[in-house]
Amino acid sequence: MPGSVGIVCSQFAHFDEPLTLRSGAVIHGYDLVYETYGQLNSDKSNAILICHALSGNHHVAGKYSAEDKGSGWWDNMIGPGKPIDTDKFFVIGMNNLGGCHGSTGPSSVNPVTGKPWGSSFPVVTVEDWVESQARLADLLGITQFAAILGGSLGGMQVLQWSISYPDRVRHALVIAAAPGLTAQNIAFNDVARNAILTDPDFHGGDFYAHQTRPRRGLRLARMLGHITYLSDDVMGSKFGRIMRTEGFQYGFDVEFEIESYLRYQGDKFAESFDANTYLLMTKALDYFDPTHHGRVGTLSDALKPATAEFLVISFTTDWRFSPGRSKEIVKALLDCGRDVTYAEVTHGHGHDAFLMDDPYYHGLVANYMSRVAP
Amino acid sequence: MPGSVGIVCSQFAHFDEPLTLRSGAVIHGYDLVYETYGQLNSDKSNAILICHALSGNHHVAGKYSAEDKGSGWWDNMIGPGKPIDTDKFFVIGMNNLGGCHGSTGPSSVNPVTGKPWGSSFPVVTVEDWVESQARLADLLGITQFAAILGGSLGGMQVLQWSISYPDRVRHALVIAAAPGLTAQNIAFNDVARNAILTDPDFHGGDFYAHQTRPRRGLRLARMLGHITYLSDDVMGSKFGRIMRTEGFQYGFDVEFEIESYLRYQGDKFAESFDANTYLLMTKALDYFDPTHHGRVGTLSDALKPATAEFLVISFTTDWRFSPGRSKEIVKALLDCGRDVTYAEVTHGHGHDAFLMDDPYYHGLVANYMSRVAP
Repeated sequence: MPGSVGIVCSQFAHFDEPLTLRSGAVIHGYDLVYETYGQLNSDKSNAILICHALSGNHHVAGKYSAEDKGSGWWDNMIGPGKPIDTDKFFVIGMNNLGGCHGSTGPSSVNPVTGKPWGSSFPVVTVEDWVESQARLADLLGITQFAAILGGSLGGMQVLQWSISYPDRVRHALVIAAAPGLTAQNIAFNDVARNAILTDPDFHGGDFYAHQTRPRRGLRLARMLGHITYLSDDVMGSKFGRIMRTEGFQYGFDVEFEIESYLRYQGDKFAESFDANTYLLMTKALDYFDPTHHGRVGTLSDALKPATAEFLVISFTTDWRFSPGRSKEIVKALLDCGRDVTYAEVTHGHGHDAFLMDDPYYHGLVANYMSRVAP
Repeated sequence: MPGSVGIVCSQFAHFDEPLTLRSGAVIHGYDLVYETYGQLNSDKSNAILICHALSGNHHVAGKYSAEDKGSGWWDNMIGPGKPIDTDKFFVIGMNNLGGCHGSTGPSSVNPVTGKPWGSSFPVVTVEDWVESQARLADLLGITQFAAILGGSLGGMQVLQWSISYPDRVRHALVIAAAPGLTAQNIAFNDVARNAILTDPDFHGGDFYAHQTRPRRGLRLARMLGHITYLSDDVMGSKFGRIMRTEGFQYGFDVEFEIESYLRYQGDKFAESFDANTYLLMTKALDYFDPTHHGRVGTLSDALKPATAEFLVISFTTDWRFSPGRSKEIVKALLDCGRDVTYAEVTHGHGHDAFLMDDPYYHGLVANYMSRVAP
């Protein structure tokens, strides 16, 4: 019977060695918060890294206490007997640099100034995250991961790992990802960013000093994000034109169920997430491009260094990163003669399907992982 | 050689008779601004009404002066020798009630208070627009239109005309429309509305008294709207990942061309459009539903009163109101035994294709109109 990893706790790692980012900016010392599930074996060959997406964090599986009503964000995927089997693998979840869940980010205090970094926190890229993740692996004595796994922006980090550190990744599981954003993807991100940037409570990113938060902007960004995470179909079947009110109210308060859902999601997010982190995450998405604007050639050229075996998974109704985008990755990997398994999962939920507990999808991952040596 | 209707001027009509809206609210007297092109024939049988979409207005064709750099918004469709031929037809464009281009709307002065209507302007529906348009027709002595034509929200007004006043519409041209919004459509509208409603400069809709405008909110609403008006394909081919800057700037100013385009569109709109009108227009879209939430049965039941002949046109890459939505209308009309011509135009531009000068599309309209008696 698949179970839970149980009660977990977060750990911190401090890094003193300065990290030079792709932008040229240098971070002098930083913390990363992470969690681990399962046991690292004696030759440290059974480690799996989970890379999170835009609003994710290091709390991937398990609960913080017996009373904890929630679980880690990918608890259905990771645990004893689950597709990522913690009886066999040692799994690491971490919060990316620039995040707002414990790793050093814009809301952290900059030791040099004694104030939150705010607008002075540098823009981080997917490459920078991989560097910082590699340092965490070094600290834990892991020279090579059995697998690295991620969905959406997490999948981009997996791709980057396979390019930056081919020797350190045996299996790369790239789920609901894309080899770069389209103009439409960038456009949605830019609207979200502008909602935050133009919120008077943003104060140029230094809202911490004003004892406020740009809730309006974050709320709009999250509402908009949610539209792109769901398929038109699932929105139609879950909400359709169902109303919460008895007939039309002829005003601008919530009337349709979909409005109530979006506003609730927006409000919840605006209370808990850091606006500067949101900006950074969307920018990392926009910037991700293994071809570096074609300077290293085509995507096939960019993926040439990769030596991992790949599992690439897409979802039929994902219109944010459509199956076609995954196929671009698969084609490039095949051009390089890489070993790739590709599956397009029929799923009605859209982009967020990668977080769902779907037997076929999870069966695919479980089956793939069954042939991964620990 | 197809030409222009030339120099045009706007006209005003004042209506003293109170208009009771669907909401129950009553407007005691209002103005409508309109333009006409071509000559009304002696039996007043050659009139065509153009219904505008969200941000449209009464200036449909021609120029205001010889120096006028712009033309009416559907100038490519309407004029001597054009698909809607003003040598044959008398064409009327009007600004809808609640608009911000001359017809009575939230930015107009309420004669009772001597102040702009602002938040007290009632929510208007597609049905209400048809009522007010019918009164304008009465004033001009037009008992029956040869055709009523509109794209997007304009197409919804055409549908409503065919239901509300079957005897007054001989031909109904419904372009890039839908028989009602999906949850996703409503969701986008709700994000746009929330951007406006939560802008501190909105002042609950009474910003006129504060000598300000909710520019931030309107700008975001328009940026978002533009994403849904364009196809992913055309955004990709026009903008792709092209940058305006030399390499990444690692900040949040404009870097990609698509960002520049969207912000420009947003800024331009925010300076000229009224925020309250934007709210009203999106609400009219949300509310439009000929079935009245199924209370009058199916769409086929709702369209039973219609006696017009129909031309329904959709565009392949329109993901806002996809061809499937037009086919719902066509199916319902066929269920009613109506005479319907349907065309799905292959066009890369998305929803906004209905405004484009496309020979195949215009040929279809011209061909259909050639058999419409003046």
